[in-house]
Amino acid sequence: MSDPFVVVGGDAAGLSAASKCARESERDVVVFERGRWVSYAHCGTPYYVKGEVDDLVDLTSLSPAEIEERGIDLRRDHEVIGIDTEGRTVTVRGGGAEFEQPYGDLLVATGATAAVPFPGVELAGAFTLHHMDSAAAIRAFLEEPGSVDPATVGDGFTDEALVRRYAERDPPERAVIVGGGYVGVELAEAFSAWDLNVHVFQRGERLLKPFGEAVGDAVATELRERGVTLHLDTPVERLRGDGELEAVVCGDEELETTLAVVGVGVEPASDLAAEAGIDLGASGAVAVDEYGETSADNVYAAGDCAEDTNAVTGESAWVPLGLTANRAGRAIGATVAGDPTPVGNVAGTAVVKAFEQECGRVGIIDHDHAREAGFEPVSETITAGSRSGYYPGNADTTVTLCADRESGRLLGGAIVGTDRAAVRIDTVATALEAGMTVAEVERLDLAYAPPFSPVWDPVLVAAKVLNGTLEDG
Amino acid sequence: MSDPFVVVGGDAAGLSAASKCARESERDVVVFERGRWVSYAHCGTPYYVKGEVDDLVDLTSLSPAEIEERGIDLRRDHEVIGIDTEGRTVTVRGGGAEFEQPYGDLLVATGATAAVPFPGVELAGAFTLHHMDSAAAIRAFLEEPGSVDPATVGDGFTDEALVRRYAERDPPERAVIVGGGYVGVELAEAFSAWDLNVHVFQRGERLLKPFGEAVGDAVATELRERGVTLHLDTPVERLRGDGELEAVVCGDEELETTLAVVGVGVEPASDLAAEAGIDLGASGAVAVDEYGETSADNVYAAGDCAEDTNAVTGESAWVPLGLTANRAGRAIGATVAGDPTPVGNVAGTAVVKAFEQECGRVGIIDHDHAREAGFEPVSETITAGSRSGYYPGNADTTVTLCADRESGRLLGGAIVGTDRAAVRIDTVATALEAGMTVAEVERLDLAYAPPFSPVWDPVLVAAKVLNGTLEDG
Repeated sequence: MSDPFVVVGGDAAGLSAASKCARESERDVVVFERGRWVSYAHCGTPYYVKGEVDDLVDLTSLSPAEIEERGIDLRRDHEVIGIDTEGRTVTVRGGGAEFEQPYGDLLVATGATAAVPFPGVELAGAFTLHHMDSAAAIRAFLEEPGSVDPATVGDGFTDEALVRRYAERDPPERAVIVGGGYVGVELAEAFSAWDLNVHVFQRGERLLKPFGEAVGDAVATELRERGVTLHLDTPVERLRGDGELEAVVCGDEELETTLAVVGVGVEPASDLAAEAGIDLGASGAVAVDEYGETSADNVYAAGDCAEDTNAVTGESAWVPLGLTANRAGRAIGATVAGDPTPVGNVAGTAVVKAFEQECGRVGIIDHDHAREAGFEPVSETITAGSRSGYYPGNADTTVTLCADRESGRLLGGAIVGTDRAAVRIDTVATALEAGMTVAEVERLDLAYAPPFSPVWDPVLVAAKVLNGTLEDG
Repeated sequence: MSDPFVVVGGDAAGLSAASKCARESERDVVVFERGRWVSYAHCGTPYYVKGEVDDLVDLTSLSPAEIEERGIDLRRDHEVIGIDTEGRTVTVRGGGAEFEQPYGDLLVATGATAAVPFPGVELAGAFTLHHMDSAAAIRAFLEEPGSVDPATVGDGFTDEALVRRYAERDPPERAVIVGGGYVGVELAEAFSAWDLNVHVFQRGERLLKPFGEAVGDAVATELRERGVTLHLDTPVERLRGDGELEAVVCGDEELETTLAVVGVGVEPASDLAAEAGIDLGASGAVAVDEYGETSADNVYAAGDCAEDTNAVTGESAWVPLGLTANRAGRAIGATVAGDPTPVGNVAGTAVVKAFEQECGRVGIIDHDHAREAGFEPVSETITAGSRSGYYPGNADTTVTLCADRESGRLLGGAIVGTDRAAVRIDTVATALEAGMTVAEVERLDLAYAPPFSPVWDPVLVAAKVLNGTLEDG
């Protein structure tokens, strides 16, 4: 009891660490979660909103009971409000009290919060989609009044009063999404499934910016073909309303709506660590070493609140993604259980579905970013078939690969297509993490059979073309 | 005209080489093809038999006219019957004559022939599926009499008399497939689509032997669930009949049938090279160096008649697959055009569809094979979801990974599942060719999004489990 492993945050990183430590050691493990939801998949909320996932609880992978069966002391509705890195205690508010909890090792896994860069998100009908409760509320708003029983949504984890408020309202006819990133694109699909008039506002000229031009263009085309109205290069200034949302305002223009979701990015929830004097990185996320340890002894950070090491540049980066969080948490759990384990690098591999378009990206695609990292970037984009041309289901697959001119080293790639395109980014990710040159990628012995791939897989075609460009100097 | 690049064989390897050389140099390029079909996809024939591909010509990627437009002198119905490596000429029979053709460089790309280890395959109704004509004949046999016009099948490339013979016969009610490899499994699906009573005879106890136990078992289950009768451990002795096939004979048992396809493997068509005194490897295929050159100066070999270098062992191997043939041909075309290019290694990556099961394999899976190559193999097989558990379409995906105990190096892998399983083998192939250890595979940053993958991709789960086994010693 004197030397517990204390975890702040009961989601991917926190519970991966807690589970690993509890399994591999005799240490006491305590997890504080300030909310009621634990072990939930944020990434799944758009599919719950869409209606493809019936029950919000389906998005959780472990119940509180299952977590406790693993030997973890789980305290929900307990917020850690301070860390004393000298005295090795945390201050906890919960159960109607405030108390000090000593730790031997501490993991800060406080996640991220939705960025809200303009006023009006507090209006009823305006949401960020960064919590299970907001997913529950949005879905209740979409359903016909009276058809949702707020008491049953989310199996008691959800804010019942919030859900009730929206379950009683008339469904919106229009949905406005502010932000054309993952959440925006996924929600455009979700709201279209409810036959809403869907509008997406994007500050910049391109959707899914980290995926590069070819993917962004393909997704814009897909969304428009599905009836979504895109407002590109259109910064939203505020949401207007009086208690309830009435319109989205951009300059002199405004668009009336009773539903808006703001998904313009997330920010690392690093205040708790910063207030304790723990170093943050340039990104604002908690700085960590290769074992996930912060500037404070025996204090670790992982998941969306912490930085990672970029697999391409070797530099610190902030890439808040699910696998990274799980993996880093698991490694830290092993470390504090006595088996020092590096948290691993991050290649920035990401995939997203935009209606039928599957999009993937990895590494460095943006040329400015590549140059900042000391590379001389060269990219090629090709479109090739996903299967043999004569085989049913063959579909165009567009691949961008980016390499360093001098070394020929692969720096990153992106892919978009309707037929199994997303999974193919893993080939590029693996080549990238292996430090392969484009010439080596071109010689990869990838699978060929008519139902699954043409003789020259689209990734190989891209490597062939890019390698030709590199050889031509 | 004095120094032409002469190619024997007008399919994948031969035409890839001819096209590359014609594009990259001023050399004369002559291709001799003994048949009428050129640039055809063998791998697609089961889907033509099935009826998913309408027209046999759809399986060709280049027409004779397109090949000639590339500046290639294409001679169909021309058989090379001898090579004089001293005089640097080949003897050609074609156009009603026999003549000598000088070469500066020669590529032997004679392919493979179907193995026929028992008598009776000459009977009408018995086939090997290793030629476009046999695909045309089988498909004509399956169709109702009178519904196929033999003159239009294969656009004039096909043996019309052969097709006519089968187009007039009553369709079979039963189909017997001898051999449970790629062709056997693909044809089981094809014949089932015609509602035939389908039987597969396999000499050994397992289907798809190179894919290992987990895949073989899953495919056997799939075939049985689809109504295919499997006769495992059942060597066929002969096909019985009197002009026309009547039955398949195994010991005292026989099974009546009017249609049988023998797909028990292929053999390298290396006689032409062997008779010219060119060295063959232990496999019986033509031995080549890293540039695809044989023991005779300026004579190259590529495709199904030639050996390759195994990416795992570095030793010579015979792996007759489509990408390998195309890649080696292209490299040799570059070499003879003046840009020496290695043909590359072969990881043995292969995928096959068995009804809804997608199967993949790469590298060394078989423990005896691994031990022969000097490794101490350790394997683990896991089953994990293909997508997030709550996302529609999530399906069991079984992954086997094999590694060397001492070095931890990945040696090979196999995968089977109904949801995008096949494409995932490319991740394993890339890791294998990069020489990764299983620990490195476990740390790969693979893509995660609910519609495409769980947080821990099945490949990562397999690596995690195998790495645990390796660490436990």
